[in-house]
Amino acid sequence: MSQTPRILRINTKDRSYRFEEPGKYAGMGGRGLTSRLILDEVPADVHPLSASNKLVASIGLLSGTGAANSGRISVGGKSPLTGTIKESNSGGSFCTKLARLNILALVLEDKPEPGAPFCNIVLTKDGVRFEDAGDMTGMGTYAAMDAIAERHGKKACGMVIGPAGEACLTAASIQFSDPWGRPARAAGRGGLGAVMGSKKVKAIVLDDEGGARFGYADEEAFKTASKRWAEMLRAHPVTGQGLPGFGTAVLVNIINEAGAFPTKNFRTGRCDHAARISGETIAEFIEKRGGKTKEGCHPGCIIQCSQNYVDEKGGYVTSGFEYETVWAFGGNALIQDIDAIARLDRACDDLGVDTIETGNAVAIAMDGGVIPWGDGEAALKLLYRMADKNDHLGKIMGSGVGFAAQAFGVDRVPTVKNQSLPAYDPRSAKGIGVTYATTTMGADHTAGYAICQNMLQVGGHVNPLGKEGQVETSKALQVATATVDALGLCLFVAFAVLDTADSVQCICDMVSARHGITFTPDDFVKLGTSVLKDEIAFNTKAGFTAADDQLPAFFSTEPLAPHNTVWDFTVEELQQAKV
Amino acid sequence: MSQTPRILRINTKDRSYRFEEPGKYAGMGGRGLTSRLILDEVPADVHPLSASNKLVASIGLLSGTGAANSGRISVGGKSPLTGTIKESNSGGSFCTKLARLNILALVLEDKPEPGAPFCNIVLTKDGVRFEDAGDMTGMGTYAAMDAIAERHGKKACGMVIGPAGEACLTAASIQFSDPWGRPARAAGRGGLGAVMGSKKVKAIVLDDEGGARFGYADEEAFKTASKRWAEMLRAHPVTGQGLPGFGTAVLVNIINEAGAFPTKNFRTGRCDHAARISGETIAEFIEKRGGKTKEGCHPGCIIQCSQNYVDEKGGYVTSGFEYETVWAFGGNALIQDIDAIARLDRACDDLGVDTIETGNAVAIAMDGGVIPWGDGEAALKLLYRMADKNDHLGKIMGSGVGFAAQAFGVDRVPTVKNQSLPAYDPRSAKGIGVTYATTTMGADHTAGYAICQNMLQVGGHVNPLGKEGQVETSKALQVATATVDALGLCLFVAFAVLDTADSVQCICDMVSARHGITFTPDDFVKLGTSVLKDEIAFNTKAGFTAADDQLPAFFSTEPLAPHNTVWDFTVEELQQAKV
Repeated sequence: MSQTPRILRINTKDRSYRFEEPGKYAGMGGRGLTSRLILDEVPADVHPLSASNKLVASIGLLSGTGAANSGRISVGGKSPLTGTIKESNSGGSFCTKLARLNILALVLEDKPEPGAPFCNIVLTKDGVRFEDAGDMTGMGTYAAMDAIAERHGKKACGMVIGPAGEACLTAASIQFSDPWGRPARAAGRGGLGAVMGSKKVKAIVLDDEGGARFGYADEEAFKTASKRWAEMLRAHPVTGQGLPGFGTAVLVNIINEAGAFPTKNFRTGRCDHAARISGETIAEFIEKRGGKTKEGCHPGCIIQCSQNYVDEKGGYVTSGFEYETVWAFGGNALIQDIDAIARLDRACDDLGVDTIETGNAVAIAMDGGVIPWGDGEAALKLLYRMADKNDHLGKIMGSGVGFAAQAFGVDRVPTVKNQSLPAYDPRSAKGIGVTYATTTMGADHTAGYAICQNMLQVGGHVNPLGKEGQVETSKALQVATATVDALGLCLFVAFAVLDTADSVQCICDMVSARHGITFTPDDFVKLGTSVLKDEIAFNTKAGFTAADDQLPAFFSTEPLAPHNTVWDFTVEELQQAKV
Repeated sequence: MSQTPRILRINTKDRSYRFEEPGKYAGMGGRGLTSRLILDEVPADVHPLSASNKLVASIGLLSGTGAANSGRISVGGKSPLTGTIKESNSGGSFCTKLARLNILALVLEDKPEPGAPFCNIVLTKDGVRFEDAGDMTGMGTYAAMDAIAERHGKKACGMVIGPAGEACLTAASIQFSDPWGRPARAAGRGGLGAVMGSKKVKAIVLDDEGGARFGYADEEAFKTASKRWAEMLRAHPVTGQGLPGFGTAVLVNIINEAGAFPTKNFRTGRCDHAARISGETIAEFIEKRGGKTKEGCHPGCIIQCSQNYVDEKGGYVTSGFEYETVWAFGGNALIQDIDAIARLDRACDDLGVDTIETGNAVAIAMDGGVIPWGDGEAALKLLYRMADKNDHLGKIMGSGVGFAAQAFGVDRVPTVKNQSLPAYDPRSAKGIGVTYATTTMGADHTAGYAICQNMLQVGGHVNPLGKEGQVETSKALQVATATVDALGLCLFVAFAVLDTADSVQCICDMVSARHGITFTPDDFVKLGTSVLKDEIAFNTKAGFTAADDQLPAFFSTEPLAPHNTVWDFTVEELQQAKV
């Protein structure tokens, strides 16, 4: 029998909690819920580390069901990195277990006095316990997850911060247990780990023993739709073959070939050593060494783009080894050794920092002469300085690209709203540039992944070097993505959705059957639009205007090889990408 | 015979230079010229440390004449700290000597390749020389000024950066020789020292041997007006007695008594130990120890608010020991020992950082637990870490309040446009709060010093705790200040000007007689308005909007003792303060 999931509010100052009926938030989930709640309850002008900010983790509208790839957890708050509203979602087991505990969302509120100790928050079917985390303070997330397993059993899963989050650094991530208990999945972008750190919470531990699966308003209808849904994902060449075969790093060769692979802090669009760091090479190494080329990041994932990357002796190094990470360290910071990059990925997860922001901060450190270009060992040492809370170079490295550039006197700062640009140069993939500039999140490829149309021939084709069609493409994707994020679905379903005629109807059928409503393709668009409008409303109240929806000036003045194109959208043109 | 002063453009990349006729800049000077030239020639969206930014130093319309207190040098550029246009003016001998070399303004353009060495630029009546500054790299400004004196004689004066400017840190100042050759005068605010550092210029050295005074279009008329001008300044109780007697630190007791002395990172408006750090105490110590209580910061100064502060053995410690500095270290960072504060002032000058930004960054370090509250010795050690270019805590301390707060996870960040609030709490001196919020410069008391009307009964009286009249007062002051800054006059003439019926006419008479034009009180207002419009135009192009003209949220939610008032202006009300 289906219960109505509840909202759990936790006061981190007095360590009290209460369960609430969803009330006005009934029928919402994922990014839809996190953004609405932040808009409603967090004054837009407050400091992101102040007691008035909140950290919300919400399951999606399809989470906790048998729908394939529906187990993404959305984390929201006011971002310490960008000052905007932020939703960052992650795989891992957390979302599914939260659903089994009948919790729609948990909300961390207020903050303890300065100097207060860290705590863990333990959720079971019997309620909430606060436990001292003094012995876990300063731990990397791998050690922290081991400590959690020791204390709460191997089935318990965690949402945890590393030393960077404890220090409230603005590139701090929140790491989540993957199905093997490794903290390799991250709500990486926007520094939400710093918000968790400011509230002195080291980990939230879920033990769903005795929890129950959600019921369905119409179980038969759900099964029919979800079966079709799984077929669709298995049938598409990207979700059925490319991602399972090579992980997201399959993009290295594709994007490099297209001349949109930002190299040496965005100086050129092609990297000579791309083949050494490609998804194909990664897969070859893993197979040769006895790792695993495909794993799901959360229960119910059938795309299986994750992996178990092992060293030459077959020992586990990292998982969730994404294209973005490989690019940031390998392309933008010129590190040629894929094993070194894997260790850097592991270090980011362990220290609890976003790999995009931090890989690119390493490129800034290289640009500023702090370490040599391409030196992976030096980069690793630089990152591990974050492990010492009194190391101030560590603080700089954990605070993102804009901060590092200011510290090192570097004038080449590829950010939007202080968030580092991801792995596609906007001069030769202009659709994604429109997304970087105009999304509510700061530069973020996942907010409207126009690489589909610009590079991958998914969902049609838009010439990546021209302006035509880019704004419309980005806008439509931004809306659809907001819906996908509200549903708790993995963004990668979009590849299949964009290319399959009945895909949106199929998703709608699942939502309808789960919730006992009539959810139509029109509602699908309305949901995403509504989420974006909430986020824009928050950002407007926080002082953001059209003038902030811009790329740095150098993209407009420096042509990018090999296509020698520049960024050339006006403020007015870009505003058309907003709902 | 009067020559037309020229504009000197220096290309810092290829070390070339050219003199130009003023052309469209004829009849402009000081802040009027720096802001117009930056608006005309610097793309508003470029990075402040990029080759496209320029650093302009301009004499005022009355500089180089016999008018009392007309020797302020205006320095302008796009600010690395705020991202806005910036004018920061300074005393010292530079302005007068530049005038004697018949130079209206010098403009540093372009920038050398990464890794290029620092140079000095030497200006004499015979032209421009570039000399290697390798041996001066890393020097504090005191040592640098000694090196300049040794190389170019004691009469040569300098515009110089310290280690902070060399490292392009955003709180870096530009220090100027005072009439005794000490680098104790500063264009402190907005990080213009970092712009000079990015162009790899350690010092600009002036040797005006053989230069000539400007002539006057009507010498007799000028003499008559300038005599009246000097009388006026001598007659006013603030410019004739208060400032010469006790320096600007005379304000410590006044502002503290008024409950507007921000204490412990803006937590309260009164400081228990104010008497220990007051202007009266400073004067008493100086007299007892054999220093000097009054000195002019530039040739022709008759207000004499500077001093020669000495230690217990009578040895020189610092000069230009301002109220703002005493407050930042003494009130906001709770340091009770005035000798320690004097050493901190000296350290800021020597390292080349703004004392307001840096004193308050020390308060942030205390708030973040880096050093104990009130510990002057620890603060001094913290600052001197900037002397080591590889010390990253030093980099944090030299990058201002916003940066330090981000590094140390502090959520209490009293800045506007990332510039630290100065020494008057806007909750109990609301007129200055309007200036902080709305000036083109980021939080800046000198841009519209409503303390006159709020606290000092100069130029009328406006209740500091109420809203009535504040916007109008701030706006009128912002206009008048822009004119004063364009004329090259010391801002402190405003005390006399506001209270003296024929003061503006007297200034106009001097301008008319100097330039052979008819400059009226109406032109006086038009000039300031025009300067502000230029600056607003630049900031608008750089992406600033009304939403940026705000104080941090905590000023609106935390009442300030002893008056328990909060900041309560709306965005719309504040916009009325803009021209």
